[in-house]
Amino acid sequence: MRTIKVIIIFLTLFSPMILHSQEQILTLEDLIPGGKTYNKYRAEMPQSISWHGENLTFIKGDTMFISPRKENDRPKTYFTLEDINTEMGLTGKDRLIKLIYAQWFNPESNNLLVRTYNRSYIYDVETRTINATFKVDKNFENFDFSPAFNYVAYTKENNLYIQSHDGKEFAITNDTNKAILSGQAVHRNEFGIQKGTFWSPKGSLLAFYRMDETMVTDYPLVDISTRIATLVNEKYPMAGMKSHHVTIGVYNPTNDSTIFLKTGTPKDKYLTNIAWSPDEKYIYIAELNRGQDTCSLKSYDANTGKPIATIFTETHPKYVEPQVPISFLKNDTDKFIWQSRRDGYNHFYLYDTKGKLIKQLTSGKWEVVSTIGFDAKGENLFYISTEKSPIEKHIYKLNLKSGKREQISNEEGVHEGYLSASGKYIADIYTSQNNPGKIATIETKPKKSVIWHTAKNPYINKQLPEITIGTLKANDGITDLYYRMVKPTDFDPQKKYPVIIYVYGGPHLQLIENRWMTGARGWDIFMAQKGYLIFTLDNRGTPYRGFDFENIIHRQLGVIETQDQMTGVEYLKSLPYIDSERIGVHGWSFGGFMTLNLMLRHPETFKVGVAGGAVTDWKYYEIMYGERYMDSPQENPRGYKETNMVDRAGDLKGRLMLIHGDEDPTVVMQHSLQFLKSAIKKGTHPDFFIYPGQGHNMMGRDRIHLHEHITRYFEDHLK
Amino acid sequence: MRTIKVIIIFLTLFSPMILHSQEQILTLEDLIPGGKTYNKYRAEMPQSISWHGENLTFIKGDTMFISPRKENDRPKTYFTLEDINTEMGLTGKDRLIKLIYAQWFNPESNNLLVRTYNRSYIYDVETRTINATFKVDKNFENFDFSPAFNYVAYTKENNLYIQSHDGKEFAITNDTNKAILSGQAVHRNEFGIQKGTFWSPKGSLLAFYRMDETMVTDYPLVDISTRIATLVNEKYPMAGMKSHHVTIGVYNPTNDSTIFLKTGTPKDKYLTNIAWSPDEKYIYIAELNRGQDTCSLKSYDANTGKPIATIFTETHPKYVEPQVPISFLKNDTDKFIWQSRRDGYNHFYLYDTKGKLIKQLTSGKWEVVSTIGFDAKGENLFYISTEKSPIEKHIYKLNLKSGKREQISNEEGVHEGYLSASGKYIADIYTSQNNPGKIATIETKPKKSVIWHTAKNPYINKQLPEITIGTLKANDGITDLYYRMVKPTDFDPQKKYPVIIYVYGGPHLQLIENRWMTGARGWDIFMAQKGYLIFTLDNRGTPYRGFDFENIIHRQLGVIETQDQMTGVEYLKSLPYIDSERIGVHGWSFGGFMTLNLMLRHPETFKVGVAGGAVTDWKYYEIMYGERYMDSPQENPRGYKETNMVDRAGDLKGRLMLIHGDEDPTVVMQHSLQFLKSAIKKGTHPDFFIYPGQGHNMMGRDRIHLHEHITRYFEDHLK
Repeated sequence: MRTIKVIIIFLTLFSPMILHSQEQILTLEDLIPGGKTYNKYRAEMPQSISWHGENLTFIKGDTMFISPRKENDRPKTYFTLEDINTEMGLTGKDRLIKLIYAQWFNPESNNLLVRTYNRSYIYDVETRTINATFKVDKNFENFDFSPAFNYVAYTKENNLYIQSHDGKEFAITNDTNKAILSGQAVHRNEFGIQKGTFWSPKGSLLAFYRMDETMVTDYPLVDISTRIATLVNEKYPMAGMKSHHVTIGVYNPTNDSTIFLKTGTPKDKYLTNIAWSPDEKYIYIAELNRGQDTCSLKSYDANTGKPIATIFTETHPKYVEPQVPISFLKNDTDKFIWQSRRDGYNHFYLYDTKGKLIKQLTSGKWEVVSTIGFDAKGENLFYISTEKSPIEKHIYKLNLKSGKREQISNEEGVHEGYLSASGKYIADIYTSQNNPGKIATIETKPKKSVIWHTAKNPYINKQLPEITIGTLKANDGITDLYYRMVKPTDFDPQKKYPVIIYVYGGPHLQLIENRWMTGARGWDIFMAQKGYLIFTLDNRGTPYRGFDFENIIHRQLGVIETQDQMTGVEYLKSLPYIDSERIGVHGWSFGGFMTLNLMLRHPETFKVGVAGGAVTDWKYYEIMYGERYMDSPQENPRGYKETNMVDRAGDLKGRLMLIHGDEDPTVVMQHSLQFLKSAIKKGTHPDFFIYPGQGHNMMGRDRIHLHEHITRYFEDHLK
Repeated sequence: MRTIKVIIIFLTLFSPMILHSQEQILTLEDLIPGGKTYNKYRAEMPQSISWHGENLTFIKGDTMFISPRKENDRPKTYFTLEDINTEMGLTGKDRLIKLIYAQWFNPESNNLLVRTYNRSYIYDVETRTINATFKVDKNFENFDFSPAFNYVAYTKENNLYIQSHDGKEFAITNDTNKAILSGQAVHRNEFGIQKGTFWSPKGSLLAFYRMDETMVTDYPLVDISTRIATLVNEKYPMAGMKSHHVTIGVYNPTNDSTIFLKTGTPKDKYLTNIAWSPDEKYIYIAELNRGQDTCSLKSYDANTGKPIATIFTETHPKYVEPQVPISFLKNDTDKFIWQSRRDGYNHFYLYDTKGKLIKQLTSGKWEVVSTIGFDAKGENLFYISTEKSPIEKHIYKLNLKSGKREQISNEEGVHEGYLSASGKYIADIYTSQNNPGKIATIETKPKKSVIWHTAKNPYINKQLPEITIGTLKANDGITDLYYRMVKPTDFDPQKKYPVIIYVYGGPHLQLIENRWMTGARGWDIFMAQKGYLIFTLDNRGTPYRGFDFENIIHRQLGVIETQDQMTGVEYLKSLPYIDSERIGVHGWSFGGFMTLNLMLRHPETFKVGVAGGAVTDWKYYEIMYGERYMDSPQENPRGYKETNMVDRAGDLKGRLMLIHGDEDPTVVMQHSLQFLKSAIKKGTHPDFFIYPGQGHNMMGRDRIHLHEHITRYFEDHLK
């Protein structure tokens, strides 16, 4: 999702042990992605873990292995890079250069998708047959292979193309206007949309998104790396302004023809969560109005484009936000599963295609996180949920008939699950505060788990801070708020330490989890070494705590979130080892917005703040995300005024640095510049820094520089 | 000139006395233009001082006065605002609202140019007749009234128009392509060009510049003040890239027709210093090649556009830079005066129109600064020069026949002179270090001066720093370099003070003069109050010291200038009251470039720097100024490399803040951003600040904020 999210690269890397022997200090190069020694300190995990039938394979170096099924067994070598090149006869420029560029086409088949410099092959490793050969060009993007691997769809610039397995190319669209895009993700990646092409189950038809942005205003970004700086226009639909128009085409490769679904008006509605019926006859779409308070699941005839039925409609006075397409039952294709937060938590609902709600499959004050898949007979559904704890994610099995559910994953922590071809086995990959990474293969029936990989602690000789998780009561007296505290290394309870609040606080990102190091960031550890206490709290508005916990922020972003963060601050102030005169705050994106909220709503509390890629006025943010939470500026003038940090720039008392990438297409630089302009007018003095050529998040080496820069700011003003 | 110059607003305002009684401190609001109390502290000087025949008039409030001719006489009231409105019958919206909007059309006539909301009138105050009425619109720019005031020329957007005195409008040009401009200054205001229309002496014809910028690259500026930021393209011809094409049209209002001078190719040459022959038949142009090493004075037939003759050609291996059009003798219109630095200093040369050099009129190791005009018979020429001292400017009289010259202005300082209609009197307006402003009327023959206005010291009760001027020998062992030292108020020679070098250092701007307060800036005084010593030195490259002193910078901008500034630094270090560990530097525009040179070529010396609107790489600067001093990047790769601050960003050791206006059309923000990008890559940490919506110099209230911001930076890091 291209949601307003800071990149959080979790530190899946180092020792839970508090070593008091004085060892080498960890540098930003060790701790921050992009650092020269960053990879050296990552937990060693196998690459490309994936199912091949009932075998869980992985790659180490140039060899594909099959993971052991029994305790103490060793992985078995399957084949090597050299085997593939030799068997397939790949030479010269066409050689496969790394085995990780070969992946199983899907768990059910023996086919490897082998990608070389300018070809993609479908290669059967058992029969040693090349089943398809596609030409590839560096201008091709958004590859999508048909399930029968006889076609590949891809985009070139704004248009969509298809290539048959004999290398013939067909243009599906041919729009000369670059503001009309086909085959790409739409609606700025909201509503769970991550791609723009959708093959029907057998690969007979290809549904695709088409987005007309001609009516959307351009935001002028400037690329200064050229001889003379050049304009890079970004279509940016700002809250309350004109939005793009999305439609859905269906391409039939057998007769090279396209029809469009008759989705009608208003044209600025949202067409989300595309799903095919198993028989390939119908397409199901979750359609939302621009106001995002009504979502209708509708079906369309995939051959004619005609609307067939509105299966059901969900509404909510605040907003609805479907993120997962319907999935049909394996053994009863007239029934499907739908995820909804209609009872206040995200749960499974079983429907039939006539729109009859058969039953709510799960319930309780916890949330379904994601679906893993069905077992062989389709009787049981595997999924991830927070039932055990809001800060853990476990694998569960749900019997669709009885409604009985069973926890499949054993050890504490945050688990991901991947189902074998038959549904008999699950690969369980997980970490927890004291576990840098384990992989188990779970036999689902009878339940039996074999842990076959345990990552070593890569920070065995380093002095690390003590990290604790706790909860505080929000100001409603009821809600628990999770926090993490990273104490300074060499912590002495008799001393008083400066504290930095690291905050995100927006929807869709949870910072406190029982994962490796509790999800603490490399910079947190770095600053702990320098004698700062780093404190992070997941305020209301963040995910996995239920819909009310999240949607209390509606039409007033930042208000409740700030109250919750101040609950954390009050707690900190009550601690004897905190210096209340030296409280700082740092966040990026929504966390930058939160930094501004804290600095400007509580100027007496915060001495230093660093706000990166910050929203400063929601009217400069985009329609999909912005109007969901804030409605439009026309509908909610009071809310926009209350949450406007530009207007509050005159309230600044402490030291505040804003940071922005000058080509940020997500939170455009207008946010920071408007804030500066207002501060200048009102006579306050924020600081500012730009990362030229960077987007919403600083990547690569710049990320090291960024954290040096942020660190220096706190050292200058908070030390 | 739109040369690369920081706005220096000289402090013509306060007391030379060093008061040691503790009085109120001066604030930035008092000291910086744009400050709330800035005007309160300005020396009181009459407004609109101008000649009306032999009467020198001025405006005070709503009254026009005639200045006294004898000592101790009082000014006489001439007329009032109310008189004008009543006599002319101006009422309602059409009233003249302030008398300063009425100006003498020229010294010779009784006509006032009276500007109201939507009219311009030519009004004879003696006969009380309105001689012309022109309609005016807010879209009209670049007004130019014909000498016979029967026409006014003006521009609307890119085109040139004329209006006759009965209000009829004619379009002289009608270019729909906005990149073709007519009637405006061209060549980015270099070569002394400040306007784009030139009436012939009697007003029969109108010569005008036409500039085709269609081939010039756009620099994308971004205006963030709109609802969604918008693009503001600026035609910016960068060094070595394609330049604009300028031509000269001649419009004849009697038959509404235009011809163009046949100036030929290459089209990217420079057409500068337009002058009309007194008989209106010929136009004289100083034509330069793009290389700017050859200047030919050429004449053209004003009716046919045909080239007539090349009068003479000047060349120089470095560059030639004509800045003043020829001026014909009053009493012998076949002869004209030309200014040239061909003997190493700017002097007058007398030519005839055949191109014969009659004689060099002035010579010596000093420079002619400007021409004031001829006396009644045209026998004597009045002008300003630096003959007395490089840091003073006096009025002189030159007898054209005998070559004898005489100093006309008496008291020390920097003088401006304005000639009465007949040439019998000169208004002498001047200041010096201890004189905030005086006005004398000088009778030229016999020489007799009457000082009729002496401004009071507006800072009578303030504690001011000691300000001294001195000279140091440059590293050639010969050249004197002038410096100014502003000592901390309450200076104690036993203490050690931090020092800030305030630097400009580029061509065309002299900072050390014997003018009020020696030209020290308000910020210098402000910082002196805070305990800093402010030091400024005019290095080689700055004006009024001869051509060699200036052109030593050719192809290596910043190199010699930095050496000279370091001569100043070595001197400072030799002083017992300077703390050599706390040396800072600040400058704007070329001074920003110099700040970078000092910080990066001498990182061990400078602890703190603030570089505003700085050039960081001359290849991003414009053609006219840039190629004059640096040649093109293709011609001078070594020079561009040597002077490239972007490449040196890794050498940064001290604290450096760059500041830029994000709509700066002169030094575009690419300079600062490229420097940041390089610093980020090389791992150094400059600071940065942007003034949104500002251009090359911060104006208005932002200027106060800017100086608060700069001050804080030095207080943070140099104190």
